[in-house]
Amino acid sequence: MSTDLMPNRYRPGESDLPRRESELIARRDDVLGASYRLQYRRPVHFVRGEGMWLYDPDERAYLDFYNNVPSLGHCHPEVNAAMAEQAGRISANTRYLEPKLVDYAERLVDTFPNELDRVVFTCTGSESNDLALRIARFASGNEGVIVSSYAYHGTSAAVAAVSPNLGDAVKLSPFVRMVSLPGPAGVPDGQAAEFFEAQVRAAIVDLNRRGIGIAALLIDSIFSSDGVWVDPPGFIASGVSAVREAGGLVIADEVQAGFGRTGAHMWGFERHGIVPDLVTLGKPMGNGFPIGAVVGRRAPMDRFGTTARYSNTFAGNTVGIATADAVLTILQRDQIPQNALAMGQRLRAGLEKLAKQRSGIHAIRNAGLFFGIDMGPEGTAAAGRRAMALDVVNAMRDDGVLISTTGANEDSLKVRPPLVCQAEHVDLFLACMERALIKLAS
Amino acid sequence: MSTDLMPNRYRPGESDLPRRESELIARRDDVLGASYRLQYRRPVHFVRGEGMWLYDPDERAYLDFYNNVPSLGHCHPEVNAAMAEQAGRISANTRYLEPKLVDYAERLVDTFPNELDRVVFTCTGSESNDLALRIARFASGNEGVIVSSYAYHGTSAAVAAVSPNLGDAVKLSPFVRMVSLPGPAGVPDGQAAEFFEAQVRAAIVDLNRRGIGIAALLIDSIFSSDGVWVDPPGFIASGVSAVREAGGLVIADEVQAGFGRTGAHMWGFERHGIVPDLVTLGKPMGNGFPIGAVVGRRAPMDRFGTTARYSNTFAGNTVGIATADAVLTILQRDQIPQNALAMGQRLRAGLEKLAKQRSGIHAIRNAGLFFGIDMGPEGTAAAGRRAMALDVVNAMRDDGVLISTTGANEDSLKVRPPLVCQAEHVDLFLACMERALIKLAS
Repeated sequence: MSTDLMPNRYRPGESDLPRRESELIARRDDVLGASYRLQYRRPVHFVRGEGMWLYDPDERAYLDFYNNVPSLGHCHPEVNAAMAEQAGRISANTRYLEPKLVDYAERLVDTFPNELDRVVFTCTGSESNDLALRIARFASGNEGVIVSSYAYHGTSAAVAAVSPNLGDAVKLSPFVRMVSLPGPAGVPDGQAAEFFEAQVRAAIVDLNRRGIGIAALLIDSIFSSDGVWVDPPGFIASGVSAVREAGGLVIADEVQAGFGRTGAHMWGFERHGIVPDLVTLGKPMGNGFPIGAVVGRRAPMDRFGTTARYSNTFAGNTVGIATADAVLTILQRDQIPQNALAMGQRLRAGLEKLAKQRSGIHAIRNAGLFFGIDMGPEGTAAAGRRAMALDVVNAMRDDGVLISTTGANEDSLKVRPPLVCQAEHVDLFLACMERALIKLAS
Repeated sequence: MSTDLMPNRYRPGESDLPRRESELIARRDDVLGASYRLQYRRPVHFVRGEGMWLYDPDERAYLDFYNNVPSLGHCHPEVNAAMAEQAGRISANTRYLEPKLVDYAERLVDTFPNELDRVVFTCTGSESNDLALRIARFASGNEGVIVSSYAYHGTSAAVAAVSPNLGDAVKLSPFVRMVSLPGPAGVPDGQAAEFFEAQVRAAIVDLNRRGIGIAALLIDSIFSSDGVWVDPPGFIASGVSAVREAGGLVIADEVQAGFGRTGAHMWGFERHGIVPDLVTLGKPMGNGFPIGAVVGRRAPMDRFGTTARYSNTFAGNTVGIATADAVLTILQRDQIPQNALAMGQRLRAGLEKLAKQRSGIHAIRNAGLFFGIDMGPEGTAAAGRRAMALDVVNAMRDDGVLISTTGANEDSLKVRPPLVCQAEHVDLFLACMERALIKLAS
């Protein structure tokens, strides 16, 4: 695992910055402190956003191939109009009757398999995962949680404690067990399911021997922080069954994979042919407005809701609901997941061609418009591959395209454009990436 | 402690409702489930809000003396304009340079004592308390937390586990200790500080004997869920010192007390003459937009931020910041805390007069515009007092004024109007309350 947990960041003194920027950074560090890190060797500052584009104070345009919150593009006028219209009328909480809340809840659960017909709203993906863990522990009576080796599930104390991606400084829960993924372990596709299931079963045995028991398998179906390990589809299914047999629940973290990102499906877990017990939502749900949710099966959610009081002041308020409702309407009307599938295919084909023509790309993995691109060639030392990834990210930033890095070794490019991207944007991205690879080789 | 954790709620079959409403409630229960509870015997439904007023579908006006999120009043046009304007321009995250983020952070910490000069943004009060606990545990190296007997601090797993107000169904952390407050224990004002300090010291001794140690004293300075026990000012100060001596941090939960609610001060802890180590913010910070923060001393926040990676996708995004900035501007420009002080005095005087003229009011406690009003007379059994409180709340709701209940026995009225309330609203409230007391006595 990389010892630098956020390699793609600004380090004071590393770059010559305009005085206006270095002064702002000094003030920023003074009041916000060390938790706040800036991306890129030369940080970016945007004053305007529109669709796929972000503009800096000099009106220079940057193509956004990184932000997965504004899935419908920056500053979507219909989404913003819905938010502003509702805010001008009323922002009511969920303890008052509100038809819009019920309407949207019904529309949302309709996008899930029939078994998943209940929803509780939250404000963030972290709150969703935190609540899902509470429900799973309550319903199972157990405490143990299984996650992937470099999983990241959010910021709350309970969720950070099951997020090994946060590194040594953040203590892991004594109740969490990590399982290796077949891809990074080099296991062939034909043995991937067996490999994953064996790891899950071993973790359950260990949790049971210690009297902890299994509460939940918590997985992001595209394993984004592990480095985007999406294949082969279905490899998690037998592990999922093993968890259920042992009395645990299966939580699909769809904060990144959900709302059409994976292209063929609305939800990432569908690619694996499973139906989870609980599904957690966040990031793109309001195209930037803070809203999330837990969608799930009736039995565990009722067991929790009937006895444990849960109320979340802002969650489900009418403004968030009106905003999320506009997002869902546009996603469905404009066939955004289908676009993500088509553009993902175009981007993948272009990258494969580039990998043959230029050195630097070792492997390409994607589901829809979520890509992990490993730097290489094979045999390059880990530090070298990480440096290559960082160089490409920063060369592309200087050239006007935004991406970042991911993976256990942070040597993969993380590419996840807004889902409204079109062929012209894919082609601009590929041309920019080619220039970065040429620069890297020179 | 009351066994019904939310007495002021709708129970199916208890009231005859129009078919339109009962059908909506059935759909609501089906998709949202048991976690979602409606207030009042006859639930309310509002389609429009403006300042102190909420309007139902028949354009009947309700005076809002309960909602403490829209402190500047419902649908404040300047706040909404700031939100919409920023949303139309750009919603950038905190990993990009953004002068507005730094400007607002500086303005916010300027409202605190000099020692508190760092801020980290969150999306909700629960996230703020969860993060503050993480920081306190990280900085102290200890796990123990002291809270008041019926404290409520939020919804995340870690915060719910230190919220005894949630009742038996939500397991308390083995590391939390509860301390009784002098007021509900009947301790005279002159011995209040000594009583509180003794409880805190005993909790520290117990935590140390078990090797847990003290991480934090976590207190809402108006003790709202305990029943609004605000007096005597300063009674917590010696307990606060005892925590510091033992190596623990002091967290002031200002989610309800903050941003001028207590009248004389911007922050509730100022009433007690203490300076906490960490302060948590939420509810009124964006007048409804989901935004919160932890403000604190440099040393513990840096110790956490330097090593533990903390990033919160939506928190500190430009739209939330622009909204909160408008709220702070209006709070200061329109002298909202001063208004809360004056209106709190007017309301208190009116209630005292009412308590002499009509039976039913046993005690009145307040700081600024946060009131706890105990039902009585003394000697009435707990169940009787609780029923009185519920009857008054529902009579006032039917009469067009919104309040609710609080306290260990839920026999106190909880009254906390938006801070923009004027003399005419206070007088309307008092007249409505008098009618409810007359009805109760008849």
